Amino acid sequence: MGPHPAVAAIRLAVRRVLNDVLNEALDHPPTHPQAHPTAHEVPPTPLVLVACSGGADSMALASALAFEARKLPVRAGGITVDHGLQDGSDIRAAEVVSRLSAMDLGPVESVAVTVGREGGPEAAARDARYAALDAAAERHGATAVLLGHTRDDQAETVLLGLARGSGIRSLSGMAAVSGAAGRYRRPFLQLDRQTARKACLIQQLPVWDDPHNTDPSYTRSRLRHEGLPALEKSLGKGVVEALARTAQLSRDDADALDAWALDADLSVRDETGQLECVKLYALPPAVRRRVLRRNAIAAGSPAGSLFARHIEEMDRLITGWRGQGAINLPGRVEAQRQGGRLVIRQG
Amino acid sequence: MGPHPAVAAIRLAVRRVLNDVLNEALDHPPTHPQAHPTAHEVPPTPLVLVACSGGADSMALASALAFEARKLPVRAGGITVDHGLQDGSDIRAAEVVSRLSAMDLGPVESVAVTVGREGGPEAAARDARYAALDAAAERHGATAVLLGHTRDDQAETVLLGLARGSGIRSLSGMAAVSGAAGRYRRPFLQLDRQTARKACLIQQLPVWDDPHNTDPSYTRSRLRHEGLPALEKSLGKGVVEALARTAQLSRDDADALDAWALDADLSVRDETGQLECVKLYALPPAVRRRVLRRNAIAAGSPAGSLFARHIEEMDRLITGWRGQGAINLPGRVEAQRQGGRLVIRQG
Repeated sequence: MGPHPAVAAIRLAVRRVLNDVLNEALDHPPTHPQAHPTAHEVPPTPLVLVACSGGADSMALASALAFEARKLPVRAGGITVDHGLQDGSDIRAAEVVSRLSAMDLGPVESVAVTVGREGGPEAAARDARYAALDAAAERHGATAVLLGHTRDDQAETVLLGLARGSGIRSLSGMAAVSGAAGRYRRPFLQLDRQTARKACLIQQLPVWDDPHNTDPSYTRSRLRHEGLPALEKSLGKGVVEALARTAQLSRDDADALDAWALDADLSVRDETGQLECVKLYALPPAVRRRVLRRNAIAAGSPAGSLFARHIEEMDRLITGWRGQGAINLPGRVEAQRQGGRLVIRQG
Repeated sequence: MGPHPAVAAIRLAVRRVLNDVLNEALDHPPTHPQAHPTAHEVPPTPLVLVACSGGADSMALASALAFEARKLPVRAGGITVDHGLQDGSDIRAAEVVSRLSAMDLGPVESVAVTVGREGGPEAAARDARYAALDAAAERHGATAVLLGHTRDDQAETVLLGLARGSGIRSLSGMAAVSGAAGRYRRPFLQLDRQTARKACLIQQLPVWDDPHNTDPSYTRSRLRHEGLPALEKSLGKGVVEALARTAQLSRDDADALDAWALDADLSVRDETGQLECVKLYALPPAVRRRVLRRNAIAAGSPAGSLFARHIEEMDRLITGWRGQGAINLPGRVEAQRQGGRLVIRQG
C-alpha cells in the first residue's frame, strides 16, 4: 500500500523540484575558483535547504524533502528564522530545529534576525527573512532553498497585487523559481494548503499555527479569512485555482512585454541616444508605457514610487501634446518634451 | 452657483464622449452612396442614443446626454429594451419611454426582445439586448449608443474574468469604446455608481431598482453585494479603482501581445506555410501560446471551448517533445508534430 494521497502529493512536488535542481547542477556545475577541475573530478553533492517556520506548509515540505533526498544524490538541511516578534520565538525556533533534526536533515540552523520597519510590518519581516536565508545559503554553499508557499498563498498574493492596480506584473504573484541563480524554489505553488496540512496530520507532524496568520490587523490574514472565502462564495470554488493560473499567465505576459520594451528602448532613439517622440508615438501603448517607466527609473526615479498616474502623465507628453511643461516624477526626476525629444533627467 | 458635483461629474463625462464622437464624425464623415458630396454640403447632425433600463446609472446618463446635447450639434435619443423576463416589464418599458421623452430626447423607443437560454441567463439577456440595440442604431442611423456601465460594473467584470483564470484578456473588462465602428461608448466607466445615483437624487429623477441586481442567484449580484464588499473590507477602499485600472492596463497589454502574435504567426512558417517547431520554440511563451491559440481557432476549434490546458498540451509538443501523439482539441481539431512541423487540422 502506498502513502496517503496527501503525502504522495507533497513528495511528488518535491521530487520534481529536486530533479530540476539536479539536472541544472549537471548542466551548470559550480565553478571552483581555487581548483582546476578535471574530467574525473566528482562534483560535490548539492545541498538543498528547506526554509521552515514550523507551520503546516513548511513542515510538510521539510518532511517531503527529508524523504526524497534519501533516494537522490542530494544533501538536505533546514533553516528556521527567528523574527523575534513574539515572546518565546527563540524557544519555538529551537523546537523547529529539533524537529528538523529528528527528520535526519542536516545541517539544521536557527537564525535570529532583527525586523526593521520599512514598508510596513509584513514587508519588513519578509526582507529580514530573505536576507537571513540568502546568508544561510551562502554560508552552507546551498544549491537551492525550498519555500513552502502553496497555491492558496499564491492566490492571496495575486489579490494583493490586484489591489495595487499597477498592472499585470503585480498580478504575477510568486515565481516557482526566483532569487540569485534561481536559488529559491516553491515546490507547493500548485498544491493547496489543505493537502499540506493533511500530510502533516497523516505523518503525525506537530505544526505551529502562527497567531499572525489569524490576526486581522494583517492584510493577508484578513484576505485569507474573510476576503477570499467571500469571493469563493460569490464566484465558486475554482477561484483559488483561477488566481494561481492568472499568476502564471500574467508572469509570462509581463516577461514578454518587458523584453519587447527592452528592444523598443533601443529603437526609439536618435543618433545622440535621445528618445524621439515620433518613434515613441508609434509604439503600442503597453510597450510605450514600459519604455517610459524604464527611462524614468534609469534617470533615478525609485521604481516603488512610480505609479500608473506618473507614467500616464509622461505618456501625455507623447500622445496628448499641447505644449505642457515639465512633469515632476519621484526622486527629483523631470520629464519634458524638447524639440521632438523626450528628456528625462534628475534635477 | 454651478450644479451639484455629482451632476457636474456625469455631465462632464458625457461631454467628453460627445466631443470625441463629434471629432471622429468630422474626421470620418459618413459616406453617401447615392449622393456626390460637395465641399459645401452640410453633414447631417449626428444622432446619439442612450440605452436606458430606467435604473440609476442609465437614467443619470440619459439626463446628462439630454443636457449636453442641447449645447452641441448633436441629436439625442433613447432606447429601452424590454427583456420580457418579469411581469409588467412592458409597463415599465413604457414608463422609461415617457421619462426619456420628458427629458426632450427624441427619437425614443422601447424594443421588446425574446431572451434565449444560450450561455446562461445573464449572457442570453445580454446577447438579446445588444442585438436589439444594434438594430435600433441601424434603424435610426445613430452614430453612437451610450451605455451606463460604471467603474463598479467594470470592477465586477474584472473579477468575473479573474474567476475564469484564462489570462489577461479576460481581465480587461469592458472597453470605453466597442462594437462595430466604435458604436458603443461607456462615458461612466471611470465614474462610481454612487455618483450616478446621487445625480438622479439631486435631479429628482425617479429610478427603478431591478430586482435581478439583488437576486443572489445571479453571480454578478452575489459579487456586488457580498464578494466585492468583503474584498474591500480586506484590502481597503481603493479596490474598485484598482480593478478598473487593471482592466485598462490589461487591455492594452493584451492588445500588444495579440499584435505580436499576429506578426509571429507569419514569421514561424516554412516556405509551404507550415508551422516550424524550432521557430515556435524560440518565441517567448506568452507569444507562442497566442500563436498556438490562433492556429487552433483557424483550424476550426471554437474560441470559447479552448481552455488554458488545451494550449498547454499543444505547447508541450514544442517545449516538452518526447514523441507524444496527436492532441485532441475542441471542434474535432487535432494537433500533432510531424517532422519538425506542427500540424493542426480538423479531423
